[in-house]
Amino acid sequence: MLTIIPVRGIPDIKKGDDLGRLLVTRLKEQGDTFQPGDITVVAQKIVSKAEGRVVSLSRIAPSDFAKTIASNVGKDPRQVEVILRETEKMVRMKGGHLITETKQGFICANAGVDQSNVGDRDSVTLLPQDSDASADRIRKTIHEITGRIVPVIVTDTFGRAWRMGHVNFAIGVSGMKPIHDYRGTKDMYRRTLKVTEMAVADELACAAELVMNKADRVPAAIIRGYKAPKGHGRAKDLLRPEEIDLFR
Amino acid sequence: MLTIIPVRGIPDIKKGDDLGRLLVTRLKEQGDTFQPGDITVVAQKIVSKAEGRVVSLSRIAPSDFAKTIASNVGKDPRQVEVILRETEKMVRMKGGHLITETKQGFICANAGVDQSNVGDRDSVTLLPQDSDASADRIRKTIHEITGRIVPVIVTDTFGRAWRMGHVNFAIGVSGMKPIHDYRGTKDMYRRTLKVTEMAVADELACAAELVMNKADRVPAAIIRGYKAPKGHGRAKDLLRPEEIDLFR
Repeated sequence: MLTIIPVRGIPDIKKGDDLGRLLVTRLKEQGDTFQPGDITVVAQKIVSKAEGRVVSLSRIAPSDFAKTIASNVGKDPRQVEVILRETEKMVRMKGGHLITETKQGFICANAGVDQSNVGDRDSVTLLPQDSDASADRIRKTIHEITGRIVPVIVTDTFGRAWRMGHVNFAIGVSGMKPIHDYRGTKDMYRRTLKVTEMAVADELACAAELVMNKADRVPAAIIRGYKAPKGHGRAKDLLRPEEIDLFR
Repeated sequence: MLTIIPVRGIPDIKKGDDLGRLLVTRLKEQGDTFQPGDITVVAQKIVSKAEGRVVSLSRIAPSDFAKTIASNVGKDPRQVEVILRETEKMVRMKGGHLITETKQGFICANAGVDQSNVGDRDSVTLLPQDSDASADRIRKTIHEITGRIVPVIVTDTFGRAWRMGHVNFAIGVSGMKPIHDYRGTKDMYRRTLKVTEMAVADELACAAELVMNKADRVPAAIIRGYKAPKGHGRAKDLLRPEEIDLFR
């Protein structure tokens, strides 16, 4: 059996806040503590805020290129300027959507630049500069305070090709491998499984999202009872190299 | 808090087996019963077997077209013949991969035709003909036996564009809406959320997969403590129409 515990009552996060410490405190205040094997899932939004990855649009002077794209897709030119600065490659631009590859290698809408849940209405958040490093920092703090070795996943909600709706995906991983490799194991008829590498960090991100909530203050969750694949993995392991990607 | 309970000890499924009844029995045998609000998640493999969606390759005579494609992608021509019969449109054929749109509208590898966990080594399973109807049948049986109204999700593991590894997705839904529509609700600063439609049926499928297991006999799970979006939805609601899809 697996349980997913929302971490409630996390206050408005400001630059410099120590998320690892905050998670330990909040979990304690709801009568719980980190258990061996717990996995901590943290939403990108609070990680970005704690790391100061917030940009005030009033300070952005859009380039002519940004203005052109903005008029094509019907967005604020200043926001497009910020998106372009976060973008490594443009993947698709159509129907009001900008799908880009971020400098970290994530393929998502608007390079992860987002306006929701930012206090200042003229500001946007950027993805963490290195979300694997963000996950590392949170994991280390939890370890220092509690003595527990707890894998950490930083997540963001992404759209998908072919399917409607967003789901939560892992954009930062620390303390586990994000992929469970079943190749070589036997199926129930003792036949070797050909596939399957399961992207368990993405599945854990999805599972946690079911108790997290955009509108309420639940930007983190603990998953208890899952045996994470051991090893030193990164969210980067989840990125399909362009040369073996059929859809770029 | 949300809990995910594996349903263990499900025997080898044969054509005509009553999965709804079997799930009720097995859950009872592990000292549990369906609770109000429980969501039942069932792997496609046992649904297909119960519905007789198993094909013996020895009875398949591949067409010349299937033989040509088979030699291109390095697959068994008989298996390619079966894949083609399940295919509405070919989406990509490259590097040994066949990505197709199934007659139901799912975009996945090999039209969902799969060799793993089939007793007869010369046989393959097909996806259910109508996996929403499959979910309906299981839900109705559970309701008849227990009196509980329990949403049902049928799942399969799919690859994704841009990301490594497979995840579990919903291919059949009954008794709930697969998408939670947040549009119009306020964020924590009382600003209206622009996005977000969350594909919660896919997230529930991912969550369940964490306790299911390809090699062991855990082809089903119960998710307890999640408020599924009410209404009459179908997995088809998760399919992005081609005209608004940027990646076909």
